[in-house]
Amino acid sequence: MIMPPIPTPFDAQGRLDAEAFRDLAQALEPHVDGILFYGSNGEGVHLTPAERIRGLEVQKPQKPPMVGLMEETIPQALEALQQAQIVGAKRVLATPPRYYAASTGNEGLLCYFTALADAGGPEVWLYHVPQNTKADLPLPVVAEAARHPGITGLKDSSGEMARLAFYQANRLELSVYTGHAPTFAAALALGAKGGILAAANLAPKAYKALLTAWRAGNVAEAQRLQARLEPFGRVLGQGGFVLLKQAMRYIGLPAGYPRPPYPQESPYWAAFKPLLEDLRAEGWLVG
Amino acid sequence: MIMPPIPTPFDAQGRLDAEAFRDLAQALEPHVDGILFYGSNGEGVHLTPAERIRGLEVQKPQKPPMVGLMEETIPQALEALQQAQIVGAKRVLATPPRYYAASTGNEGLLCYFTALADAGGPEVWLYHVPQNTKADLPLPVVAEAARHPGITGLKDSSGEMARLAFYQANRLELSVYTGHAPTFAAALALGAKGGILAAANLAPKAYKALLTAWRAGNVAEAQRLQARLEPFGRVLGQGGFVLLKQAMRYIGLPAGYPRPPYPQESPYWAAFKPLLEDLRAEGWLVG
Amino acid sequence: MIMPPIPTPFDAQGRLDAEAFRDLAQALEPHVDGILFYGSNGEGVHLTPAERIRGLEVQKPQKPPMVGLMEETIPQALEALQQAQIVGAKRVLATPPRYYAASTGNEGLLCYFTALADAGGPEVWLYHVPQNTKADLPLPVVAEAARHPGITGLKDSSGEMARLAFYQANRLELSVYTGHAPTFAAALALGAKGGILAAANLAPKAYKALLTAWRAGNVAEAQRLQARLEPFGRVLGQGGFVLLKQAMRYIGLPAGYPRPPYPQESPYWAAFKPLLEDLRAEGWLVG
Amino acid sequence: MIMPPIPTPFDAQGRLDAEAFRDLAQALEPHVDGILFYGSNGEGVHLTPAERIRGLEVQKPQKPPMVGLMEETIPQALEALQQAQIVGAKRVLATPPRYYAASTGNEGLLCYFTALADAGGPEVWLYHVPQNTKADLPLPVVAEAARHPGITGLKDSSGEMARLAFYQANRLELSVYTGHAPTFAAALALGAKGGILAAANLAPKAYKALLTAWRAGNVAEAQRLQARLEPFGRVLGQGGFVLLKQAMRYIGLPAGYPRPPYPQESPYWAAFKPLLEDLRAEGWLVG
Repeated sequence: MIMPPIPTPFDAQGRLDAEAFRDLAQALEPHVDGILFYGSNGEGVHLTPAERIRGLEVQKPQKPPMVGLMEETIPQALEALQQAQIVGAKRVLATPPRYYAASTGNEGLLCYFTALADAGGPEVWLYHVPQNTKADLPLPVVAEAARHPGITGLKDSSGEMARLAFYQANRLELSVYTGHAPTFAAALALGAKGGILAAANLAPKAYKALLTAWRAGNVAEAQRLQARLEPFGRVLGQGGFVLLKQAMRYIGLPAGYPRPPYPQESPYWAAFKPLLEDLRAEGWLVG
Repeated sequence: MIMPPIPTPFDAQGRLDAEAFRDLAQALEPHVDGILFYGSNGEGVHLTPAERIRGLEVQKPQKPPMVGLMEETIPQALEALQQAQIVGAKRVLATPPRYYAASTGNEGLLCYFTALADAGGPEVWLYHVPQNTKADLPLPVVAEAARHPGITGLKDSSGEMARLAFYQANRLELSVYTGHAPTFAAALALGAKGGILAAANLAPKAYKALLTAWRAGNVAEAQRLQARLEPFGRVLGQGGFVLLKQAMRYIGLPAGYPRPPYPQESPYWAAFKPLLEDLRAEGWLVG
Repeated sequence: MIMPPIPTPFDAQGRLDAEAFRDLAQALEPHVDGILFYGSNGEGVHLTPAERIRGLEVQKPQKPPMVGLMEETIPQALEALQQAQIVGAKRVLATPPRYYAASTGNEGLLCYFTALADAGGPEVWLYHVPQNTKADLPLPVVAEAARHPGITGLKDSSGEMARLAFYQANRLELSVYTGHAPTFAAALALGAKGGILAAANLAPKAYKALLTAWRAGNVAEAQRLQARLEPFGRVLGQGGFVLLKQAMRYIGLPAGYPRPPYPQESPYWAAFKPLLEDLRAEGWLVG
Repeated sequence: MIMPPIPTPFDAQGRLDAEAFRDLAQALEPHVDGILFYGSNGEGVHLTPAERIRGLEVQKPQKPPMVGLMEETIPQALEALQQAQIVGAKRVLATPPRYYAASTGNEGLLCYFTALADAGGPEVWLYHVPQNTKADLPLPVVAEAARHPGITGLKDSSGEMARLAFYQANRLELSVYTGHAPTFAAALALGAKGGILAAANLAPKAYKALLTAWRAGNVAEAQRLQARLEPFGRVLGQGGFVLLKQAMRYIGLPAGYPRPPYPQESPYWAAFKPLLEDLRAEGWLVG
């Protein structure tokens, strides 16, 4: 499974552009296995609750979508869980609370994820993305949470393969996905089922091809694609959502602009543009 | 000036207790130079926008209050700026955006603070509290921001005295306050005007006495109090808002509980309780 | 290729036990593709230059050995390079200077490795082991150093698979080996040729079996062994050379004791012993 | 007390220049309260044991010198302790072991410092300089070590004032000195007795004046000098020993060059030179 954490378009004045949001989702959906709204590249934390609702209300997904949930407490998270159902999400992708990460404790983390899973709504997937949250998701918490029937998956964007090795070795009852494109083949070797990748907003076919080759036992081809895509995934990771939006606009997708004060142009664009052009020339890009 | 970042009371079920909030503010205000609402110990990020408004609407401050503003983008921050005026705040204390801190850039940070200062509302104070935000506030940004007439102060909770030495040496047009109790006397030596301290929710008199001694040129007495208060401030810093609320409840203040999943009892309580008792025996505590 | 970074035995009083050192090397050598002396688990930095010479003089390697070189300046490193030839090393494994790492600069690093490679002695392999050196080995330095004909290999113990992905994607003229057992299969997926692993002091056969399966295209078997060995490699990495020596003594190898003040018993032993026993029961251990 | 950690001169080819070393020490000694040899700016780790001995043999100190001791194990440290007596050191300044810092443990650290203090030679001062050692020196270890009659002082170069606040509050039986020039006045406010400062190789008089003002109760003058010297100390700290040597050569002191591969010219020189010139114009520099 390859999914993109889709960006949320804002216009040049920083206003949510809900129609562009829907159009963007519709443009990407045929190329992927579903859309992740408000993931780490989705600027969900840049929206008021009312805007977040509006952004979901306009969507018309054909494939099961997922919704990111980056809240700080259980009451806020239960509200966000409700919102996720607007778009028919069968799964939410939930980061740990982060502002007071030093005070959460393993018990608090378990309590948090359990409360979401017990709510009877979407299945809960754990989301470890320390680049953004700067919060830990300790391995014992993952192992314990995996025993809950409502907690069924995990996206790990850390790129720390020792974590994936742990998940694999402990045969956790979780579908593990990587969010770290530059090490995609390594994640597959350690048992990941696929990727939820910012890069899949631009070149989903390429990552699907890598995944397909791997699954077919064609390790050499998977490695060839891995090496081919490494610079693309690496620089995109450095540039983050600002670079992603700029690249998507460049290839004609209605990704809009970052919300201010985030800049419209990325310092990584000069390094990224030729990589993007090369992938386009090889037919890997959307559109 | 000594100010406390007041906690926001929740009941045992995690609901905002607005009345307790007002009572708590009124209990503390006579002992301090004003209240900081929604500061780093104030769980502002644990509230929905609607709750944040309600929490301010009930207040009846007698001294100029300050409001913390921990937003991610300019549109969200301008909304929070409006809310701050409910309580008549003449100043807001604004942290840098944090979720995408890697993409903000110095220019983005300046753009953010400038947009707030240009809004014509409260004065803007910069707030550096990396323990919570995990975001940097680079010294060149501080130096540049200080030139804006609407940016008039700074609270630095990092405990990194090299930063205070920089502010002092560059004679920035900012009123500098420390938020790091265990190094209070050091901050004064480096030009801080006072403290906005979690510890001032419990023992404001003690920190006032230290500040008064320092200002009177009584360095030895300031040092004596500094050494006396160091364990108290240090352990409180380790325990954070969970420990602060527990201690306030213990001495009879209506501080309420942390919002779930944060625990009601702190692992630091056993270490902190005797320090608290000792200060009470010496007459330093509120109430 | 599987190599162990062999420990250097000290007696219970902390004196170098050169004979035990030779015996240990001879006990391990038949099971591996050569011995690494004074690697990161080899306490080379715990020896005086005279002791380091003595430790090498007693050896009688049958397979091409490697020598670790953890110096701070070029003059010191050239002396260590001479010493390496006592044992007939065709390769040295050189860490970057570390005490003044903030002042080395990329140019200084290149200058360092180039000076070693230009000396006309053993080939130089770069050694990135930030757990110990706390020094960076920036990727552009690796890419540039790889162009030198005398710099022919690299051991990366960081476990940061993004680094291995970079080496692979850039087709560097370096034989890349991982030093991080818990992610071994991931390293192979990213082009590593084998492992130089502390764990290969205990269970070389197991890691050879994993490598052999991978090379034979038997990914499922490689993954099975990867998952099987993960806890073993992970806990051994946590316990470091103290735990390694204790485990080796336990299974009857003359590994001796750590040099004081390092303890003779590891806090990780209780967690590690059952893992070791299990591997022994399955016939994976040396001896 | 103001002491400089004196650089060790190498010639342009990287050979120890023992005569320049003695001349340099003699040039500085009249302006300070004693010389620290092989401190963190002294490149002791860049010397072979034989060179270290030679460097001390040529010295003719008139004031009690101190010798830095940056070893990894007790046997190596006892040897270094012997060497320190060549120059008549009454005190050594000992960093914790660092290469295997993860395995030392608090007990190992205590064992290390105690072994040195029990040797019956110079008094032992603890030396915390994490910028170089990247090793922690936990506060409980300091508190426990301070109880040993042979452990009598501490130099803390971390700039973490919370540590100094702890030392002060616990009334440890240690003479505490700061090694962090940019926060000198803060350290004094927290009980430091003086400074062992790289900057005292260039401008000892300025730091002596600051210390004298502070001790005389002239806080305003101490603060004025603190602010005056902050950029000087800050940039020198960034540039480290490479910049220090370049600056000393520039003002005519025989400080020599860094040992290769460290560069002869610092990237910070352009920023530092005008600060140096300004201090010279005001008469603060040596020579």
